[in-house]
Amino acid sequence: MRLLLASASETRLALLRAAGLELEALPARIDEEGVRGALEAEGASPLDVADTLAEMKAQKLAERHREALVLGCDQVLAFRREVWGKAPSPKALRAQLLRLRGETHKLISAVVLYEEGRPVWRHAGEVRLTMRDFSDSWIDGYIARNWEAVRHSVGGYHLEGEGVRLFSAVEGDYFTVLGLPLLPLLNYLGQRGFIPT
Amino acid sequence: MRLLLASASETRLALLRAAGLELEALPARIDEEGVRGALEAEGASPLDVADTLAEMKAQKLAERHREALVLGCDQVLAFRREVWGKAPSPKALRAQLLRLRGETHKLISAVVLYEEGRPVWRHAGEVRLTMRDFSDSWIDGYIARNWEAVRHSVGGYHLEGEGVRLFSAVEGDYFTVLGLPLLPLLNYLGQRGFIPT
Repeated sequence: MRLLLASASETRLALLRAAGLELEALPARIDEEGVRGALEAEGASPLDVADTLAEMKAQKLAERHREALVLGCDQVLAFRREVWGKAPSPKALRAQLLRLRGETHKLISAVVLYEEGRPVWRHAGEVRLTMRDFSDSWIDGYIARNWEAVRHSVGGYHLEGEGVRLFSAVEGDYFTVLGLPLLPLLNYLGQRGFIPT
Repeated sequence: MRLLLASASETRLALLRAAGLELEALPARIDEEGVRGALEAEGASPLDVADTLAEMKAQKLAERHREALVLGCDQVLAFRREVWGKAPSPKALRAQLLRLRGETHKLISAVVLYEEGRPVWRHAGEVRLTMRDFSDSWIDGYIARNWEAVRHSVGGYHLEGEGVRLFSAVEGDYFTVLGLPLLPLLNYLGQRGFIPT
């Protein structure tokens, strides 16, 4: 069975390949910011937002590839009553990180799997992250050193890089931080016989 | 302040460098298997075993480098009442993995920091991992594909590689699985002014 990833995230693709899966990435373009804003205005929960966006991406690709298994993924950041996507500029990222400093936020990663054009499995994982009380000068240096690497990441950090220095505590599944609840997905693919067990 | 890592683990060195630390690795050779066996015979807990081995490594290097901060690390696997180190051969790893199949084990990672030849900080982290009910043929293929990559790892797996496919659940800190409770260490180094905050 051909497996397609409806995501441009190199981290997700690398995670799945490292686990031994053969797949191709074919990013599905949807108006993420528009959908997120509309859902948030309706009072949707962060989990609903991530799940809906993951489903939209999978669905879009699955319409054109009904013969394939299609994996849609999305990640959002939840802070107080707000749902955040990626910061559009270094300045916006700085403002986000200064608001998160010393506080706890959540990352929610959702995955939806389509088979023959229909959703057959979905899962969402949640992680709680607490930022330390870093200095203004430290965060300026951090953004200058890391913007290009993290600009496509919700929250503006990679735990596998200098981003780990933002935090005093991370509670939850590492793969969910990276944007994909990997273990539940692998277990489902194994149960269905799509990968050797 | 010069920082030395008393460990041959490339994973630990890469973790610390990715977090932005400058350090050198100078493995300290101690009789790990002998010490582990002696401590286990005395009824030492897995945490005591890991902590003692981490301290011995740091101490040995610190004696020769009193001007440096020296980081000693160790990781053990705890299953029922046993404490395991690295498997010495593919055959031994197969026997270990078959015993762990369908069961929950723990990884304990300890770190001890020496300054001016004396221990100044220590921490240990624990993670619970549950293996899925994989087939004999799958595990044979897994070992054939991964032995060279994982032979220096307690448990014989890398969560960042195909090793993730061994598991149905991983509960706890990812860095502790990799062999180093990174966040507590970074927070201590920051509090002491050894790294910018």
